[in-house]
Amino acid sequence: MEKKYTLLSNIDSPEDIKRLKPEQLVDLSAELRQFIIDIVSENPGHFASSLGVVELTIALHYVYNTPFDRIIWDVGHQAYGHKILTGRRDVFHTNRKYKGISGFPKRSESPYDAFGVGHSSTSISAALGMSVASRLKLENRKVVAVIGDGALTGGMAFEALNHGGGINPNMLVILNDNNISIDPSVGALKEYLLDITTSKTYNKIKDEVWDILGRFDRVGPKTRSLIQKVENAIKAALLKQSNLFESMGFRYFGPIDGHDVIYLTRVLQDLKDIPGPKLLHIVTVKGKGYAPAENNQTAFHAPGLFDKETGERIKVDSNKPTPPRYQDVFGETLVELAEQNPKIVGVTPAMASGCSLNIMMQKMPDRAFDVGIAEQHAVTFSAGLAAEGLIPFCNIYSTFMQRAYDQVIHDVALQNLPVVFCLDRGGLVGDDGATHHGAYDLAYMRSVPNMTVAAPMNEEELRNLMYTAQLEPKGPISIRYPRGNGVMVDWRKPFKRVELGKGRVLRTGTDIAILSIGHIGNLAAKAADMLEADGHAVFHADMRFVKPLDVEILEAVGKEFKTVITVEDGCLPGGFGSAVLEWFNDNGYSIKVVRLGIPDTFIEQGTQQELYAECGYDIENIYKTAKRYITKKVKLRAG
Amino acid sequence: MEKKYTLLSNIDSPEDIKRLKPEQLVDLSAELRQFIIDIVSENPGHFASSLGVVELTIALHYVYNTPFDRIIWDVGHQAYGHKILTGRRDVFHTNRKYKGISGFPKRSESPYDAFGVGHSSTSISAALGMSVASRLKLENRKVVAVIGDGALTGGMAFEALNHGGGINPNMLVILNDNNISIDPSVGALKEYLLDITTSKTYNKIKDEVWDILGRFDRVGPKTRSLIQKVENAIKAALLKQSNLFESMGFRYFGPIDGHDVIYLTRVLQDLKDIPGPKLLHIVTVKGKGYAPAENNQTAFHAPGLFDKETGERIKVDSNKPTPPRYQDVFGETLVELAEQNPKIVGVTPAMASGCSLNIMMQKMPDRAFDVGIAEQHAVTFSAGLAAEGLIPFCNIYSTFMQRAYDQVIHDVALQNLPVVFCLDRGGLVGDDGATHHGAYDLAYMRSVPNMTVAAPMNEEELRNLMYTAQLEPKGPISIRYPRGNGVMVDWRKPFKRVELGKGRVLRTGTDIAILSIGHIGNLAAKAADMLEADGHAVFHADMRFVKPLDVEILEAVGKEFKTVITVEDGCLPGGFGSAVLEWFNDNGYSIKVVRLGIPDTFIEQGTQQELYAECGYDIENIYKTAKRYITKKVKLRAG
Repeated sequence: MEKKYTLLSNIDSPEDIKRLKPEQLVDLSAELRQFIIDIVSENPGHFASSLGVVELTIALHYVYNTPFDRIIWDVGHQAYGHKILTGRRDVFHTNRKYKGISGFPKRSESPYDAFGVGHSSTSISAALGMSVASRLKLENRKVVAVIGDGALTGGMAFEALNHGGGINPNMLVILNDNNISIDPSVGALKEYLLDITTSKTYNKIKDEVWDILGRFDRVGPKTRSLIQKVENAIKAALLKQSNLFESMGFRYFGPIDGHDVIYLTRVLQDLKDIPGPKLLHIVTVKGKGYAPAENNQTAFHAPGLFDKETGERIKVDSNKPTPPRYQDVFGETLVELAEQNPKIVGVTPAMASGCSLNIMMQKMPDRAFDVGIAEQHAVTFSAGLAAEGLIPFCNIYSTFMQRAYDQVIHDVALQNLPVVFCLDRGGLVGDDGATHHGAYDLAYMRSVPNMTVAAPMNEEELRNLMYTAQLEPKGPISIRYPRGNGVMVDWRKPFKRVELGKGRVLRTGTDIAILSIGHIGNLAAKAADMLEADGHAVFHADMRFVKPLDVEILEAVGKEFKTVITVEDGCLPGGFGSAVLEWFNDNGYSIKVVRLGIPDTFIEQGTQQELYAECGYDIENIYKTAKRYITKKVKLRAG
Repeated sequence: MEKKYTLLSNIDSPEDIKRLKPEQLVDLSAELRQFIIDIVSENPGHFASSLGVVELTIALHYVYNTPFDRIIWDVGHQAYGHKILTGRRDVFHTNRKYKGISGFPKRSESPYDAFGVGHSSTSISAALGMSVASRLKLENRKVVAVIGDGALTGGMAFEALNHGGGINPNMLVILNDNNISIDPSVGALKEYLLDITTSKTYNKIKDEVWDILGRFDRVGPKTRSLIQKVENAIKAALLKQSNLFESMGFRYFGPIDGHDVIYLTRVLQDLKDIPGPKLLHIVTVKGKGYAPAENNQTAFHAPGLFDKETGERIKVDSNKPTPPRYQDVFGETLVELAEQNPKIVGVTPAMASGCSLNIMMQKMPDRAFDVGIAEQHAVTFSAGLAAEGLIPFCNIYSTFMQRAYDQVIHDVALQNLPVVFCLDRGGLVGDDGATHHGAYDLAYMRSVPNMTVAAPMNEEELRNLMYTAQLEPKGPISIRYPRGNGVMVDWRKPFKRVELGKGRVLRTGTDIAILSIGHIGNLAAKAADMLEADGHAVFHADMRFVKPLDVEILEAVGKEFKTVITVEDGCLPGGFGSAVLEWFNDNGYSIKVVRLGIPDTFIEQGTQQELYAECGYDIENIYKTAKRYITKKVKLRAG
């Protein structure tokens, strides 16, 4: 540890924090903040959220008896300070790396991580469960959920408040109000929180009251003083009664400054001993204490590498032309299409900058909607738009689409509405790890009747699929593509219509057949190159569609080959390979299907390449698998 | 039409309602109510909900220009009046029957059914989408969502309010407040609605104000009058500002009597021309106008056949001992287990009487939780309980579990928490139809790592699986069983531990192999009886588990047979048969798997038997399928 961390270097557990004097917490806050800046600038991760809760983190561990008491960090990307203070300071530089610590709280990593998180809005439900368990087990355990104002828009947070408010659990919800999730928070709730923060509500009522009183011109000073007193009583009562959280049965406290660590500890100390459901509203600044982050909160949510002195974000190889991010191909293409087709609208639940719908939101603000952290609503809202003849492109990360599976089935597919689901972050996403991999969508989408399930192999294919989806909208379609960059520098090709259920034969050969779906086909293509260099003749088709499958290709493969290798960046049980296998079986072909994909286990974080290798579908493994099944003798490969 | 329907017999569309004088609407209400009683008592369906909105239904069609204006009925089981008034009066007796009309609004059935429903809490999202579409298309369309206070607890309703309140759509939400869903509503929201209905909030504040004023003993009459005026101003302001819906950006109107049809039309007429998002709070009585239903709202939610004169519910064959409903086996068994194991708790999102958790709620109120219509919360709440060492049995209908798929993956399976998911209504449910079939759970659950996926063939198996799940809780398990009755009159057998991943070989033979999962195995067993009567030797195993599969059985079948028939009451893409096929393929067996199950299409309503036949897995079809694949010659079957 460097010398500048005088206090922090001695904090190996919350016990060490408790030994500090209250005034030392201010210095510890500064050190913790600096430590986060130092490490995250060199080891990319989530950033601004953790800076915003430095004081809260310290205050919580100072006041509560962790790990016996439970702290649940909603979403969890703000829990870096928590990790550093709970014994993981010296491994914190391995954050989000392969075999390193997770970027999110994780039960198997530390007893201080009371509940694993990653997806938003779960903390109140989990805390309520824990609090009820403590009551049933007669333990006097305190349970605290820390949730942002963005996460609070997720419906399940509301479900938990409604349930909790009705059964009087002993728990504290801390609302960390910074008025931003990744993008600025949206919806009525945000206005409401601003309202109570600034006491606007009270002022409005006061104005209306004085309007009435205006009629009594000659009110004397004595009466005025009386009215003043009435007003104060009303104010006190009003702030309680008019409060959204009070109406959900939670006692409301605040709003207070979330960066005054000493005051925070005092308030938490007081609240600790008040029974029942409580909500403490704290106001913080995302990126607090690091000017570049305070000034550009969206960019510094997860900034990648940056120069900590200047705040400049470091781009690798910025001179060399690189293929675009898939998300930008989506974002730019959608605008291109929407300019031609007035029926197109865009919808995303709080992933506007993550999926690049923000491009359309800027250019066509009336036709692009960030609906808040609200996947369920996003899908049914899209269904409503489609029912009236519009063509919604609803962009949700694959992993978050799990939140709206019922709405996909019940509101969209059952009514055969032409909603275009664009599933960003399909497949293994890399350093966000197990909570965020988009492993299941190919499987869970293909079980849904009426659903077309597609995955483009590259940027041009993505564009053409999007183009086709709006050209002849017939029913729902799911188009999934991966996190990160594509493979084509020159990707703005003219649009071409794609026939639904038609794949692309990329090369023909008789030694081995490879069927791939989506971007991972590029790895299969490279493996095929290696096989051809070995003298093998390879059949490779990019199937494009998991459903409907390209029957022509399957028939050809079924007649020609004894073995076929399927490659997908998705789960093996029920996935693409499984669909191919079902087809062969149902149509009378006896062919061995060697299925490469994500095995039936949760995959941790790492680079996408590391994880493909771990799962056995990087180039080398595809190559080796093919070799195993090629019976024809050929020359040994050089090297 | 009988003579008593003087008005109703002339209502073929809402145009005919509009021709009536306001005072005639009272008579029409009475006739419509009687018509529903007459038909539903003889043709079972949802009942009390529709009685509660008779006046609202008439008022809406009287005031709005349907079908151009859109009315969206949340859940939709209250829409019988709507169906009867919109051209479906004479086919209403086919409600919920095979090839008849659907029990829910359905776009393909009528232009008046603006949005298909069935699952709860979708209406505000859909209405918002429709309203935004109307704005973009410059149509001046009115959009109305009718939602009950129970459905309002579903998180997606809150997501929609939050989004809607932020973008100023021209729409009306009608809150139909009857303080009950199927079971009485739960949670803080219910208290809150009671609060505003009775103006309790205002009274509380008034009391506190007068407390303060109590100190000024000698306040004169003039001052008192002044204070009175202040109070009134405060009251008006307060009812607006303190309102939950106002805080979400919706203008709040009400509460008003939902059974005064003339007043309702006047209010709706006024609201029709007020722009922006509005919420009208109406108070109704579920079962209104039919005393037995008013007095027992839960039983008369969907009472089955009943004597309309006495209100007596008619049980068929009530003298003969019948096997129990699976739900009651769950409910009774859970109590039995919970009496022995203090770690067991029960959780259900608003299906307490539907899944029979109400038995435990009565006997152990501290340990059984109805969390409201809130599937997402129910699962993560269970995860929180499990994280603290309890063993939650979380009961959710298969079709509604789709709502919590993400929470199953992210909050339970990823952390390998021992939550026991009991999925009632797995498979085809019968007369509720396409929205409610539990078709997908075997497929979507088996893709989830760490998840054990089981389906008992009968009551004893269900009990033993439940017993085993709590005996050595290791990780999540999904136990699914069907709607309706089991097969064993004498079902309370002593508990036996089941080895996870072990099926049961029910008979051995070499002519054909049948592998079944779940209750549908009973049909397979009967088909096997018929085959044996024909002289065939049948191998039949009840696999019990979709995951892990019983490898021993599969190996035996793989070695012995060229063809195996799989039978499941679930979707074919990715389902049980698909899992069996994957295993054979991955383990080097070349065997044809003939998969019987729900095909890749949405199945409408009918009796379960009718639907099994339609899908090709009733007894007769299993028998015929087997015959097709038996090569051995035997005597022809008699008849």
